Amino acid sequence: MEKLFQDAHSIIEDSIRKVLPESAVKSVLEKVSFSGGIYVAAVGKAAWKMAAACEETMGDQIRRGIVLTKYSHSEGPLKHFEILEAGHPVPDENSVKGTQQILEMVSTLKEGDTLLFLLSGGGSALFEKPEEGLTLGDIQEATELCLACGAHISEINTLRKRFSAVKGGKFAKLCEPAKIVEIILSDVVGDRLDMIASGPACADTSTCADALRIVEKYHLPFRKELLDALKKETPDRVENVEVHVTGSVSEFCRAAAQAAEELGYAPYILSTSVDCEARELGKYMASVARTISQEKACAFKRPCAVICGGETVVTLQGKGRGGRNQEIALSAALGIEGMQNLLIFSVSSDGTDGPTDAAGGIADGGMVERLRKKGLSAERLLAENDSYRALEQAGGLLKTGATGTNVNDITVLLFP
Amino acid sequence: MEKLFQDAHSIIEDSIRKVLPESAVKSVLEKVSFSGGIYVAAVGKAAWKMAAACEETMGDQIRRGIVLTKYSHSEGPLKHFEILEAGHPVPDENSVKGTQQILEMVSTLKEGDTLLFLLSGGGSALFEKPEEGLTLGDIQEATELCLACGAHISEINTLRKRFSAVKGGKFAKLCEPAKIVEIILSDVVGDRLDMIASGPACADTSTCADALRIVEKYHLPFRKELLDALKKETPDRVENVEVHVTGSVSEFCRAAAQAAEELGYAPYILSTSVDCEARELGKYMASVARTISQEKACAFKRPCAVICGGETVVTLQGKGRGGRNQEIALSAALGIEGMQNLLIFSVSSDGTDGPTDAAGGIADGGMVERLRKKGLSAERLLAENDSYRALEQAGGLLKTGATGTNVNDITVLLFP
Repeated sequence: MEKLFQDAHSIIEDSIRKVLPESAVKSVLEKVSFSGGIYVAAVGKAAWKMAAACEETMGDQIRRGIVLTKYSHSEGPLKHFEILEAGHPVPDENSVKGTQQILEMVSTLKEGDTLLFLLSGGGSALFEKPEEGLTLGDIQEATELCLACGAHISEINTLRKRFSAVKGGKFAKLCEPAKIVEIILSDVVGDRLDMIASGPACADTSTCADALRIVEKYHLPFRKELLDALKKETPDRVENVEVHVTGSVSEFCRAAAQAAEELGYAPYILSTSVDCEARELGKYMASVARTISQEKACAFKRPCAVICGGETVVTLQGKGRGGRNQEIALSAALGIEGMQNLLIFSVSSDGTDGPTDAAGGIADGGMVERLRKKGLSAERLLAENDSYRALEQAGGLLKTGATGTNVNDITVLLFP
Repeated sequence: MEKLFQDAHSIIEDSIRKVLPESAVKSVLEKVSFSGGIYVAAVGKAAWKMAAACEETMGDQIRRGIVLTKYSHSEGPLKHFEILEAGHPVPDENSVKGTQQILEMVSTLKEGDTLLFLLSGGGSALFEKPEEGLTLGDIQEATELCLACGAHISEINTLRKRFSAVKGGKFAKLCEPAKIVEIILSDVVGDRLDMIASGPACADTSTCADALRIVEKYHLPFRKELLDALKKETPDRVENVEVHVTGSVSEFCRAAAQAAEELGYAPYILSTSVDCEARELGKYMASVARTISQEKACAFKRPCAVICGGETVVTLQGKGRGGRNQEIALSAALGIEGMQNLLIFSVSSDGTDGPTDAAGGIADGGMVERLRKKGLSAERLLAENDSYRALEQAGGLLKTGATGTNVNDITVLLFP
């Protein structure tokens, strides 16, 4: 079992390291070849870290760079970058000013030049310029009307792309004739490119007709300026963009798979978009464990690492303390009680699982009995959402400290 | 899509057919070679059907046979069998009488003879003879004390095997020197052999010391006769038994895998002991579907059939009508909305899903939109546990009629 715990910790460390903004940016830059003048725009909450990694790799190759990040999210000066900060989650005048500065920089780009566009979470608020005739206030008001009427987020985005001068692929057009190499550090489960920061450099598949249908469907009382903006088509093709999505939960899963494989476990990625109730995923993974141990026709051959990634939810029923990953582990512990020589662990990439100092939890077949010997009931602690206490008492807390990235969670069943 | 629906229906039909008591018994008998005199004891709720299939296959090879089943569970005379009926779920005097008749038959067996022992659900109550010095009432009383004190089912079984003269492997000893070929039609998720009818022909791994520890742990106020019974060891080895477990949910999964494979889908059995909340399994399977369509590193290569078996639970929140399998399908429909060319279906082997005339449900990517066009919200119907109505309106009900078997449910994601 000691070896197994060591393997689990080494998979966790390796896979988190690979999805840190710095390593994510570097690993993409290693694969890309550049020509002409290189300009860099880094936008989002991780913009500073991404820019720093870029500077470390490319140094004086960078002709000019701008970081546009959230207030207090930059960590000092960078030689090749101007550093701008603005409002998030609500865009403010500094968002518009910063965006304008990036637009001015890209307006100087020539054929053969490259804009390296480093995009991370929060980019939607930070990178904004209202369409002609509109103000930030108009966009805000429209968004609130949409939310109030119950429109789906994809419908809201269809409208918002038309209120913005830089979203829905419009920024890509403004960079022409230069080429864009875009590195997206994604924390959107499922990685729909046009959902990340509403896709400044991504073709828009929706049409004006779609937008107007949404207005009709929800009887949205938009004023004339907003309605006019909906009548302009967004780019349905962008041809000057090369996209690299990185640091997503998919990459987190792949990193765990690779780390597991290097330790001799056959890796199986089942899902990279888990969104069910945390404790039910724990139960499910335990049932997979039982199947592996009992069923010859099972799809997984030992030694194996069965991997799921995504973002589960916790429906609070009790008053305990814990987090999604801790609940997954505690629930899994109940399902593998008495089984030997296997582990199920679940960990958040940001190192913070719920309002606790743990990153997640790790369960083995003896955990429930260890709690019982201390007079504690695993079932009852789970019912109370008290997973932190359960794992703390049974030696199942995982702690990594804050990691500086956020690409959701992975749950791994390790069966030697 | 039409082809895909046809494939789904053909997988459902094929896999249910293979787990019917008749086919399950026949497929085992095809593999077994017999010698000497053949005697048959069929015990459990499906005893008549199993005996009928046996008679059809073996005919006059059967020297003598006894069916011991629940009241009203036999379907007419069989040429080679005496047919006895008794109490279930509470054993009665007819259980003891019927068991005694079987014991008398096996007492005549000689070296080289074979007892074909056909065991199905309900066998625990139907096949019973109290240990010397105990009555049926004593056993009943002891069981009730155990249940009241919160003992685990495995602990209760450790005790019960000692109160019975035929459980915990003792029946196997009574058949010596003859050989037993046991065919178990299992509806116990996970297939722990000694849990099925408390294992009349299965070695017992528990000891007297274990039994006495359980009495101490729960301060069970057993009287002397019961305590004495606990002091006799059960057989820890049985060497005259050849066991074939059939008709279990594992077999249901394997039958679905085989049917899918014959249609050109790579089959993947993930779990044969699913026990989580139905709608969460639906969500989970939808996340697997999204992963297959988007993630190159996914463990499943198309065309594929991803299979889970077991028995989920439904926590009622609303007042609608439905069943576990229908909830799985409806919940999955929400998770695959807009996706093309795939199906997720879930079906109960007994043909009855919850208090409805449907066996389960089948979801595709257009289901939620079809409901929307009728002014119905899939989310709201799911929240109301109204899956029957949702599936009925969207053309997603699966109906097979009563099938005559019960080996739980399978959920299949079919992705061409």
